[in-house]
Amino acid sequence: MNIQMIEAAATRARSITRRTPLLSSPALDAIAGRRVLVKPECLQHTGSFKFRGAWSALTALPEDQRAKGVIAFSSGNHAQGVALAAQKLGVPAVILMPSDAPAAKIEGTRSYGAEVVLYDRTTESREEIGAAIAAERGLTLVRPYDEPQVIAGQGTCGLEIAEQAAEAGVTEADVLVCCGGGGLTAGIALALEARAPGLRVRPAEPEGYDDTARSLHSGSRERNAQEAGGLCDAILTPMPGELTFPINARLCGPGVVVSDQEVLRAMSLALRHLKLVAEPGGAVALAAALFHGDELAGEAVICTISGGNLDPAMLARALEV
Amino acid sequence: MNIQMIEAAATRARSITRRTPLLSSPALDAIAGRRVLVKPECLQHTGSFKFRGAWSALTALPEDQRAKGVIAFSSGNHAQGVALAAQKLGVPAVILMPSDAPAAKIEGTRSYGAEVVLYDRTTESREEIGAAIAAERGLTLVRPYDEPQVIAGQGTCGLEIAEQAAEAGVTEADVLVCCGGGGLTAGIALALEARAPGLRVRPAEPEGYDDTARSLHSGSRERNAQEAGGLCDAILTPMPGELTFPINARLCGPGVVVSDQEVLRAMSLALRHLKLVAEPGGAVALAAALFHGDELAGEAVICTISGGNLDPAMLARALEV
Repeated sequence: MNIQMIEAAATRARSITRRTPLLSSPALDAIAGRRVLVKPECLQHTGSFKFRGAWSALTALPEDQRAKGVIAFSSGNHAQGVALAAQKLGVPAVILMPSDAPAAKIEGTRSYGAEVVLYDRTTESREEIGAAIAAERGLTLVRPYDEPQVIAGQGTCGLEIAEQAAEAGVTEADVLVCCGGGGLTAGIALALEARAPGLRVRPAEPEGYDDTARSLHSGSRERNAQEAGGLCDAILTPMPGELTFPINARLCGPGVVVSDQEVLRAMSLALRHLKLVAEPGGAVALAAALFHGDELAGEAVICTISGGNLDPAMLARALEV
Repeated sequence: MNIQMIEAAATRARSITRRTPLLSSPALDAIAGRRVLVKPECLQHTGSFKFRGAWSALTALPEDQRAKGVIAFSSGNHAQGVALAAQKLGVPAVILMPSDAPAAKIEGTRSYGAEVVLYDRTTESREEIGAAIAAERGLTLVRPYDEPQVIAGQGTCGLEIAEQAAEAGVTEADVLVCCGGGGLTAGIALALEARAPGLRVRPAEPEGYDDTARSLHSGSRERNAQEAGGLCDAILTPMPGELTFPINARLCGPGVVVSDQEVLRAMSLALRHLKLVAEPGGAVALAAALFHGDELAGEAVICTISGGNLDPAMLARALEV
């Protein structure tokens, strides 16, 4: 993994992925007590950053292999990213999704033309089911984060942050990144290491699913006690990735862990002041920026809103906070 | 009014106003039956396009006049635009707002440091109250639309649409613009006349407040039967502007009129598929794009989301549609 891979991914993505803006609001600055710059990947195609990694991975495949099709497993955002990338490239996609994924994500994935296979997240192994279908149909598995070209694709978000932060006059700051398996975190960290070394990535996670924070602290990959049931469906992974963790251990500052209540408040504030829909897992970094200022350094903080795919009932719940 | 004034406003606004992106979603394309390109001015500073015109007007004033301060009357978006522009320039601002304006807009205006004076929209004349305060304190009135430098500022949105539509491969299309007094409509129409003559502006209005559509049809300025009480508070003006109407009569195609129910559905779809908060008045053009396709021409349609400032209860109402 290196910056050249990220730049090559950016070249392949030109005029395909969206360059999301870097937003701010005086009201959020006042709450945080410092400047808050927000990278809204909810505005990316498919409503999350995952399209970046999926596009990178699919366009990096040899053409004959890609033509046979791809398979992915995902609670919904990677699913939609792979589905749309496959649709744009005209190749088949099979997506394994947990049956308790938000309906909006399952519908979204189907709407991009993918074949959706549902499984029970608590009793079935997605890896086994996926391996069987892949072997049978000659499909290539696109992993959600432990895949170099996926990490390179997520890194294109970091290239944009480096440029946009410099334009905003910010060269030293913590960069809070919503963290599940650690692909976006690792990609952004690699990009910033090369292009904006004064910006330091800090993974943000929800309470109960703080595997990366604990792993960064202990120095080895720690597992979550539970794997499902949390508010932040998008980022509930069993443990840090094999490929992503060494990158994040080398480049990231300590993790920041937020409560579900803080996540809901951040979602509500994103609606009111940024006019943006953030899903719970996509709002953890904003929650960390707003409510964990004492754990941060510097006069400015940058944070991702990594996705905005959620059911209307969840949005209504955030509005009540 | 000419393109040079708009380009001068764009120069004064460089690195101050936000260049909002041009977004799209396959789900909206499917509903509309054509490509839908959305210019989300809800992401502009203060949550609406009005900051563009306010910044243009204030920066065009002679310095000594500007230093004495400005006054504006507005249901909320022009109010916030003028308040923030004045705050950034370090000059005082008094804003007259109707007492029934959304609380979020009144709070927002105060948060940008302006002095807010409330009046009763049904019994008092904002013009008289404003004239008295302005005379007493030597303030300059910044009109919401019938002011050349305000129209020039709104026109900067049109310059961006011209460039971004070309990048998206769209050179012929209707451009639906949320229309109250007609400032944004006129500014965009003037910019497109010069920079993208294949793009034609069509004003979008809510039922019962379709003064511009009727005026374009009759050829002279028609008045609305009512002036308050509608869903789309941001764009409830008594009649087309004196300066804006001749521009719009010369350059715009027929108006498109949408129902409140269509507006609420458009708000809901913007939340779901664009991850954006649109206020009712800001969603009329999207409603026209999605639900009045038979009145439109071409394979693509462009529409503004002109603002996203609304109370949470209204957002919750849209979610229930």
